[in-house]
Amino acid sequence: MKRSHNCNALRKSDIGATVTLAGWVDRRRDLGGVIFADLRDKYGKIQVVFDNPEVNPIADTIRNEFVIWIEGTVIARPAGMENPKLDTGDVDVMVTTIKILNKSEPPPLAINDHNEECKENDDLRLRYRYLDLRRPWIQKNLILKSRFLGEVHAFFRKNGFEEIETPILCKSTPEGARDYLVPSRVNPGSFYALPQSPQQYKQLLMIAGMDRYYQIARCFRDEDLRADRQPEFTQIDVEMSFVEQEDVMGMFDNFVSEVLCKVWNFEAPQAIPRMPYSEAMLRYGSDKPDIRFGLEISDVSSIVVQSEFGVFKNVVNSGGVVRGIAATGCVEFSRKQIDDLTSYVGRYGAKGLVWMRVKDGGEVETQVGKFFTVDQLNALRDAVGAKAGDMMFFIAGPEKMASNATGQLRLEIGRIKGLMNPKVRKFLWVTDFPMFEFSESEGRYMSTHHPFTAPLPEHLDMMLNGNLKDCLAHAYDLVLNGVEIGGGSIRIHNPDVQEKVFRLLGLTAEQVQEKFGFFVDAFKFGAPPHGGLALGLDRVLATLEGQDSIRDFIAFPKNTSASSPMDNSPSPVDAEQLQEVHITLNLPKKA
Amino acid sequence: MKRSHNCNALRKSDIGATVTLAGWVDRRRDLGGVIFADLRDKYGKIQVVFDNPEVNPIADTIRNEFVIWIEGTVIARPAGMENPKLDTGDVDVMVTTIKILNKSEPPPLAINDHNEECKENDDLRLRYRYLDLRRPWIQKNLILKSRFLGEVHAFFRKNGFEEIETPILCKSTPEGARDYLVPSRVNPGSFYALPQSPQQYKQLLMIAGMDRYYQIARCFRDEDLRADRQPEFTQIDVEMSFVEQEDVMGMFDNFVSEVLCKVWNFEAPQAIPRMPYSEAMLRYGSDKPDIRFGLEISDVSSIVVQSEFGVFKNVVNSGGVVRGIAATGCVEFSRKQIDDLTSYVGRYGAKGLVWMRVKDGGEVETQVGKFFTVDQLNALRDAVGAKAGDMMFFIAGPEKMASNATGQLRLEIGRIKGLMNPKVRKFLWVTDFPMFEFSESEGRYMSTHHPFTAPLPEHLDMMLNGNLKDCLAHAYDLVLNGVEIGGGSIRIHNPDVQEKVFRLLGLTAEQVQEKFGFFVDAFKFGAPPHGGLALGLDRVLATLEGQDSIRDFIAFPKNTSASSPMDNSPSPVDAEQLQEVHITLNLPKKA
Repeated sequence: MKRSHNCNALRKSDIGATVTLAGWVDRRRDLGGVIFADLRDKYGKIQVVFDNPEVNPIADTIRNEFVIWIEGTVIARPAGMENPKLDTGDVDVMVTTIKILNKSEPPPLAINDHNEECKENDDLRLRYRYLDLRRPWIQKNLILKSRFLGEVHAFFRKNGFEEIETPILCKSTPEGARDYLVPSRVNPGSFYALPQSPQQYKQLLMIAGMDRYYQIARCFRDEDLRADRQPEFTQIDVEMSFVEQEDVMGMFDNFVSEVLCKVWNFEAPQAIPRMPYSEAMLRYGSDKPDIRFGLEISDVSSIVVQSEFGVFKNVVNSGGVVRGIAATGCVEFSRKQIDDLTSYVGRYGAKGLVWMRVKDGGEVETQVGKFFTVDQLNALRDAVGAKAGDMMFFIAGPEKMASNATGQLRLEIGRIKGLMNPKVRKFLWVTDFPMFEFSESEGRYMSTHHPFTAPLPEHLDMMLNGNLKDCLAHAYDLVLNGVEIGGGSIRIHNPDVQEKVFRLLGLTAEQVQEKFGFFVDAFKFGAPPHGGLALGLDRVLATLEGQDSIRDFIAFPKNTSASSPMDNSPSPVDAEQLQEVHITLNLPKKA
Repeated sequence: MKRSHNCNALRKSDIGATVTLAGWVDRRRDLGGVIFADLRDKYGKIQVVFDNPEVNPIADTIRNEFVIWIEGTVIARPAGMENPKLDTGDVDVMVTTIKILNKSEPPPLAINDHNEECKENDDLRLRYRYLDLRRPWIQKNLILKSRFLGEVHAFFRKNGFEEIETPILCKSTPEGARDYLVPSRVNPGSFYALPQSPQQYKQLLMIAGMDRYYQIARCFRDEDLRADRQPEFTQIDVEMSFVEQEDVMGMFDNFVSEVLCKVWNFEAPQAIPRMPYSEAMLRYGSDKPDIRFGLEISDVSSIVVQSEFGVFKNVVNSGGVVRGIAATGCVEFSRKQIDDLTSYVGRYGAKGLVWMRVKDGGEVETQVGKFFTVDQLNALRDAVGAKAGDMMFFIAGPEKMASNATGQLRLEIGRIKGLMNPKVRKFLWVTDFPMFEFSESEGRYMSTHHPFTAPLPEHLDMMLNGNLKDCLAHAYDLVLNGVEIGGGSIRIHNPDVQEKVFRLLGLTAEQVQEKFGFFVDAFKFGAPPHGGLALGLDRVLATLEGQDSIRDFIAFPKNTSASSPMDNSPSPVDAEQLQEVHITLNLPKKA
């Protein structure tokens, strides 16, 4: 029952050959005694023909998704019947022998419905994922991912990285997103945790002298799920010794041009632009700017503070800012569109959206015109770079909110105007992140990334002197089309600096020992300077494919309840199993 | 602080060059004002020399495992001072600038003690694993593993396999070795399980039409640990569609000759021999024969049953067997050696060990000679193939015990006689395993491998007729030097046959649904014929390196209590964390 060819192999040049094929019946048609079937496998499709009393009685019984094996002769399709959409569209196979390898019940998903629209609800698709995955356009995602992984392996090996596995059964760390716990049978009352990332292990590998490490690393976060999150996900995880920020970023500049450009067949960027965090927040209202289009943001606080427009004036005078944007060619936006945008930015905290039209002669028209001089209006127009035919929008408020809301407005206008071309790939490095962020909820400064991130060398003294607000970190994110596809940092390698950072975060020596003990100790035995980066594997794939969700790049994903409708995991287990691992259930009381 | 070269790069041809290097101080010697230091990194070692008042005061302070950066000039070593053991042994670097990048406390492990003997106890090594890993001979294992993985990736890609990730958060299966459980926060009272292998997922990928799959797959088994087991381990996991046993084995024949032979630089076997399970059990007393040496086993039941030796006679007459082996050239074994062997086989259930010497003329000498005729003794000698100078050993008992105990005796004699040359690599396929095994403890037949393994086609009717004892399976193990490094099978793809196997195992329809429900359903929608194999990644490495334990091929292994002395995982967690995942502790009562 061997196959001589796959279902995408036969061409005109094979006409006359005797071949054996195996695959799934994609579609079957009985045209008055002659039966046609499309045979499908991972590689493609081919039409086979039954016109012979030996095989037709069996061919009569085959249905969609039956698995069949056939022997036959390659023949030319009749002139005019060629199918240019199929690689095998010039030929048919005239069947001489058929064997049904397996039957199929009518599939609950339309596998041969090739319009790439999934009509079924998500849970039905996930329940029958093994059928969903038979759809060529989903299969294609996994094949692409495999090909990408092959290039990833080759790239890092070529650059002297060792592929090293780190544990999945780890120690629970008491901070950050929630750990998945694994009770130990052998050590009653103790628990492993699944790793949120291999961060500590990869740093330990640098301390161990492994010099350059990479791993396709499974990570776990027990978060409340959003559409694009999965309880387990995969990182392309990298760490390098004796490097500075430029070395890590340079390695990934090469990764983009040698791996991503190759797999996705686009031209390598001359150089990936770099932008400090503060500039990104000002110009794009985002730490992950989508630079496929302009619509840049300007701060107009110094102009509006001189106006008579109380709303803006008061915001600026009380420490806030006013940010503006020129929506190119949007002068004709309707009242309804503007109302929609106003309620859109309202979701991000904006209390209002002030808009102004730039008329043909450059004159600014606005409902709040009476509060501004003509010079002030013209100054606003010039500050945001608006031209005749543009609409201007302004948002006022505390800097963080106004910046973000204007950034979200910019993206929304970009969407409305169709500026987010998925075929355009714009990469950007965002650098110089703040080392610390003040947490209102905790009432103290927290690490923006993690407490092992190094400050900029020129900010070290500032940090040691206790100025946390202005201290910038040696951290960098790689952004593609407005999506953060990776991030990393140079790590602290000096145990004294590490100790100081913990102190600044308000930890006592005892707390440091309890939370990070063994890891901090490791730095006392000759840690090299080191740094690294991690890319979100499925995030890279989805973004380059122009898809919002990572789910269809994962063979067996979980749904938004972190469950698998296919095998009903997670599921209850026997009391015996719980007893073996020394736990009992403690279920929430029902209301 | 960049390095121009690694510590293994400089040669005679570099003499005169100005270079920068970074690494760990492996050893420092002060020879009357001139200071020599060996600088070490992953790549090797180089001697650097301090003989200059600018650098010597700093060089004076460096100690073992300090991380330093130097600039200097490559010079020739003085004639006669070359070190042929080092790749860089022809040159020194005369240092002009030094910077201490990091200090080190005195390391608790002797990293520069290059005799490859670890004097420290295992838990000390694991506690400071990041230092243990700095030892070049352990680092070498991880580098070898990475190189091997690179060849694995390349081999399977070249052969059209897709690398596909399967979940770590899975459904708990109620059979087999113990599952690690993960309580769900989002689904109170439910648990994920960590996969014992991706078996069901890889079969689902075949049903999904992925055709050829491979994965470097993490697996988890909560077993009581032996020296060579780890709670998590890694498989090279493979599955193929539209194949027969020959196709899978042929793929791995190629894997051995293209990957293993390349990485370990040994000559490819002409063809990997194949041996049915029954023959392996008879000739080697093992389902994983070490065929590096002979000392084959013979069944002598039909000879001894005619003797007057009651012990043997009674065993045979009551359904047991007597197995014998010729220990080549062991005629001079002392009484003490024989006693040791007797107690050795006693561990495997043998109630005694009968021995006979073959003297110079071929005459057989034995303490139990009076129970045998000379013809019978000669027949025994010829049956086991003994020659003058050999010792013969015989073990009687129930077949399973006698076979195994004789197999163990064979291995022990092989060890004593030094026949297990680690440089010799003998691969063997063991095939035709029994489909079922009778479990005395369960009082019923169980699957030898798993219930998805297909019977031999020619044994299908036998199985359907209820003869489980003689039914053989399409299962195969790959054995290297007496170690099972992998195993696999052709799977059942016909839902009716699958149903029948479950019935034969004594399961009701309800039990099948409960235990294997969704998986069995998947076979109703057109499952292709498929089969696969999994290799133990670290087992392959350890066996080819001639090491017994897999531990030093794993960066961060657990100890024999499934714990990590480095981070003290598993460890107690906060009551809050337990509450979040809806469990409480249920600790065993203290005695």
